[in-house]
Amino acid sequence: MKNTILLLGGLGFIGQNIIEELQDEYSLIVFDHSKESKDLKNVYIHGDFTKKEDIEAVFSNYKIDLVIHAISTTIPASSNTVLDIDSNLTSTISLLELMRKYSVPKIAFLSSGGTIYGIVNNKNGANEDYPTHPISSHGIIKLAIEKYIYLYHHIYHINYLILRLSNPFGEKHLSDKQGFINVTLKKIIKKEKITIWGDGRIIRDYIYIKDCTKIIHALINKNISNQIINVGSGQGYSINELLLIMRNQIGDFKVEIKDARNFDVPKIVLNTQRLRLLINFKLTPIEDGIKKTYAWLQKKYE
Amino acid sequence: MKNTILLLGGLGFIGQNIIEELQDEYSLIVFDHSKESKDLKNVYIHGDFTKKEDIEAVFSNYKIDLVIHAISTTIPASSNTVLDIDSNLTSTISLLELMRKYSVPKIAFLSSGGTIYGIVNNKNGANEDYPTHPISSHGIIKLAIEKYIYLYHHIYHINYLILRLSNPFGEKHLSDKQGFINVTLKKIIKKEKITIWGDGRIIRDYIYIKDCTKIIHALINKNISNQIINVGSGQGYSINELLLIMRNQIGDFKVEIKDARNFDVPKIVLNTQRLRLLINFKLTPIEDGIKKTYAWLQKKYE
Repeated sequence: MKNTILLLGGLGFIGQNIIEELQDEYSLIVFDHSKESKDLKNVYIHGDFTKKEDIEAVFSNYKIDLVIHAISTTIPASSNTVLDIDSNLTSTISLLELMRKYSVPKIAFLSSGGTIYGIVNNKNGANEDYPTHPISSHGIIKLAIEKYIYLYHHIYHINYLILRLSNPFGEKHLSDKQGFINVTLKKIIKKEKITIWGDGRIIRDYIYIKDCTKIIHALINKNISNQIINVGSGQGYSINELLLIMRNQIGDFKVEIKDARNFDVPKIVLNTQRLRLLINFKLTPIEDGIKKTYAWLQKKYE
Repeated sequence: MKNTILLLGGLGFIGQNIIEELQDEYSLIVFDHSKESKDLKNVYIHGDFTKKEDIEAVFSNYKIDLVIHAISTTIPASSNTVLDIDSNLTSTISLLELMRKYSVPKIAFLSSGGTIYGIVNNKNGANEDYPTHPISSHGIIKLAIEKYIYLYHHIYHINYLILRLSNPFGEKHLSDKQGFINVTLKKIIKKEKITIWGDGRIIRDYIYIKDCTKIIHALINKNISNQIINVGSGQGYSINELLLIMRNQIGDFKVEIKDARNFDVPKIVLNTQRLRLLINFKLTPIEDGIKKTYAWLQKKYE
């Protein structure tokens, strides 16, 4: 019999890609607050993560082997601390309490490698033991959630897999607010104004979403547990480098430059050595990832 | 003119001792939810830390040079996560917002060296860079508060002094729930049953409260800023060793042994090297601290 995975936030960008990657091998229960079911082949539950009874209904009806927690109600730029605390932190603690009550053995939590470390001054990138000094409420709450997951592991023996994702981009990403590559490609297609903050030298670690979900798949299959793992490309690209790649592939477009934002970390690249010791994987070159993303967005919007 | 310090939680155990230590040199505004004013020589404001308007009233009436935040509404053993989040975390973020609004330049926060590190396997004790894996909600929330203080420093330039206190004991401590030395001495005096959890080999770092407040005084006078500092004795004593010291000083008493509690860290001793490089101080021998505490409690209860 297939193992059953509850995927929280299954109709978001990352969630939808996880479904594609896992649905042949696992029995998926997809939980989301979005009303569209998007012709899922899987069980779909329309519910509100912040309502304890909605989550409890799932655990009382299904025997869950693994919860993948891919819900984040905020993004770094919004930095609404009250919303962060109520919807993300408090709701996750309530989830952990229910996992304990219903003896659900394991949680995989998608944390934020891009915000949890804060400012990284290290040429080898931030590894998982790097000090954590987030400069956004979003990052602090992700960190606090990690700590509660550890607490529930320590006291109640719930196993965990904490995945600190860098900046995934690719198919099924439609946000207008977060994710530089997708937001920019979409604006190019829609011929909208493209805005960058600062001098374009901000460096980030980008990972093509299908690489990201393959990695998650491999870690779940190997039953890697009770570890914090950076999931990124380990490569840094500046905004200017990305714009150059896009211009080479698509042609020229105009860019508006605004003042730098105080919650943007100048440079963050993840050190992925721990991940590479656990599983084998090959990364899609960023040019190819951007090409595929552009093609998908073109089909969607043109 | 004297600098003005707002002391939040000024009528608690640590707060009252801070008042004694600082009142000759600083102009103190004492804020507490307790109704007794205890014949203070200082301005006393009766208010609720969880009510934004109560804190805002202080900042709009007084020019504050430093906020000492000595409020904690929970203890490690209670581990009421909802209360922890609402009253401690959310209220502190609201305090930081008000400090920004009223341009209050600095906060000294009393954090928890005893819970923030979690389990320490290090013969030199936990220094301030030691990984933080609390095994109580109390510790996680203290950590999250530290992170928000850092965030407000980074973005809004509010200066901070984060003091990770070990286990203070001594005069003016009356809690029946927290603080092994005081709780036990009081029970000896009142001839009540003394309970220990586990085999008595749990090791903690105890600091006599008057040493602790002298250290806080010195750090404030030197205007040490934007650092996290362990404040402890750097010495570990087991429960059994403490019971022996008490028996030597007071005479025999009976002890009831209960099962170990899962939120108790087996051993935590703070590494205080950073503190010792910043200021000079001499510690009261633990035997003398216990003797003074016992004498104070005797006067109070006999």
